[in-house]
Amino acid sequence: MTLDPAFQVFLGDCRVRVEQALDHWLPVETTQPRRLHAAMRYAALGEGKRVRPVLVYATGRALGVEPACLDAAACAVELIHAYSLVHDDLPAMDDDQLRRGRPTCHVAFDEATAILAGDALQTLAFRLLCEADDLCIAAADRLRMVDVLAQASGSRGMAGGQALDMEATGQDIDLARLENLHIHKTGALILASVRLAALAAGAADDERLPRLERYAKCIGLAFQVHDDVLDVEGSTAELGKTKGKDAATHKATYPALIGLDAARDMARRLTAEALDSLEPLGEAAEPMRQLANYIVRRKH
Amino acid sequence: MTLDPAFQVFLGDCRVRVEQALDHWLPVETTQPRRLHAAMRYAALGEGKRVRPVLVYATGRALGVEPACLDAAACAVELIHAYSLVHDDLPAMDDDQLRRGRPTCHVAFDEATAILAGDALQTLAFRLLCEADDLCIAAADRLRMVDVLAQASGSRGMAGGQALDMEATGQDIDLARLENLHIHKTGALILASVRLAALAAGAADDERLPRLERYAKCIGLAFQVHDDVLDVEGSTAELGKTKGKDAATHKATYPALIGLDAARDMARRLTAEALDSLEPLGEAAEPMRQLANYIVRRKH
Repeated sequence: MTLDPAFQVFLGDCRVRVEQALDHWLPVETTQPRRLHAAMRYAALGEGKRVRPVLVYATGRALGVEPACLDAAACAVELIHAYSLVHDDLPAMDDDQLRRGRPTCHVAFDEATAILAGDALQTLAFRLLCEADDLCIAAADRLRMVDVLAQASGSRGMAGGQALDMEATGQDIDLARLENLHIHKTGALILASVRLAALAAGAADDERLPRLERYAKCIGLAFQVHDDVLDVEGSTAELGKTKGKDAATHKATYPALIGLDAARDMARRLTAEALDSLEPLGEAAEPMRQLANYIVRRKH
Repeated sequence: MTLDPAFQVFLGDCRVRVEQALDHWLPVETTQPRRLHAAMRYAALGEGKRVRPVLVYATGRALGVEPACLDAAACAVELIHAYSLVHDDLPAMDDDQLRRGRPTCHVAFDEATAILAGDALQTLAFRLLCEADDLCIAAADRLRMVDVLAQASGSRGMAGGQALDMEATGQDIDLARLENLHIHKTGALILASVRLAALAAGAADDERLPRLERYAKCIGLAFQVHDDVLDVEGSTAELGKTKGKDAATHKATYPALIGLDAARDMARRLTAEALDSLEPLGEAAEPMRQLANYIVRRKH
């Protein structure tokens, strides 16, 4: 995949920013309890694509806010994502051994530590929204950010989506149910990334927000459709996780339900709709456009 | 145990308040994902002692604030406690089958659902602090409440305490390490209950707060010492959990480390110190005094 050079720089800058900020916020491994802190850092730092933080920064760019005002939101949403991966990988859940090309957290440490590390990563996400030395955002807006993140993560958001996913595994489900599952499991946090950026920008009532939210809904779903396609098309080495896992575990996927070509086509149409939503936003929304393309072209 | 009649009424009122508020905040079982919502309600509603919410209301009484301004704090701290019990009971952690006289959450449902229910209960705790229709508390104070609760729950608070507990199981640890473990595992959330009530009362800078915090630290430790004593003295039926579990799993406890009599004596001394801290606070602190006595006299 060839990325637009300017976007490649943007992507690199965002990843460095969020990595540095996470490194700052995560307790060091030399403080007690060491094993727990080591597991938290293992799960949150390193090789992630950082799609959600990048989306926070890209939305901030479109709304004209400084990256420094977005670090807390970018880290918080990534910590929630990181915690969910740790818990989803557990033996009682998806039972995955490999994540981002490395052993999953419970394999590298142990199950109890992985459960606690996930728990504490979630807690840290909320703590960070309160504590970040971030003079850009008023207390009332920060409180709304906590609320937005909590709604997106909870039983009617991401955690609920994972519950629906567990229920659906091995069952015949239709397209509407699959879409509902993904709207919760991945879509909610991607939508929250845009909303958090808007709150950090003081733009919660901005007339552009509905367009940004439509964009987020489209790329959220496109992201998942493309993930399903990659599970069929990609290689284990490229994916950093076990290829063909979905089919092997009889997981409902878009290719399984509508066929590989139709799934690819669906991802393309969702991307086109996302780009269409951004149409009136001009040059400042360019990173958001590039991100939409990146999401359906990535190899892992 | 004979309770002071006025305190018995207070205790009953607090428990009804928090049960009703939790029932209001927890998603109903008829909304999707149903099994997840059922598990969350199973874990959070019902037979709990509600020590932390009672402490929130008792502290609020001492500081002269209406119970209606304390419901969000009382529920939030109880939801964090409830989530921690669900995760601590998991097979990879303490592997408990019985809690409050009922099957533990992963036994009543399944492990995956219990993990997700714990996750979502934690999320709900933070959400509730933002959303409760509670005009008493300014946004800046609410944000501080989120921060206090997050600090008390995270890797250097409750979750960290559970990690220390897992490390210590089967090991010979000394009294200082046992105390450090409990200061994190149970103490942090009990201290947070007092701090949350103070924030809800707009009394974060009140000169009485250091005394209230000293009280909380003493009863937090006394609570744990008494728990250890009960595990030796109580019956499985009274406890609602398996008696003698600590000894069977070679868990470090106060009776094991200093003997049963010395442990009882330690609980008494901590209670006396807690009561001493409240000395200048007059009649309004009476529920706090009764609560300190209740904690070391309860049979479960």
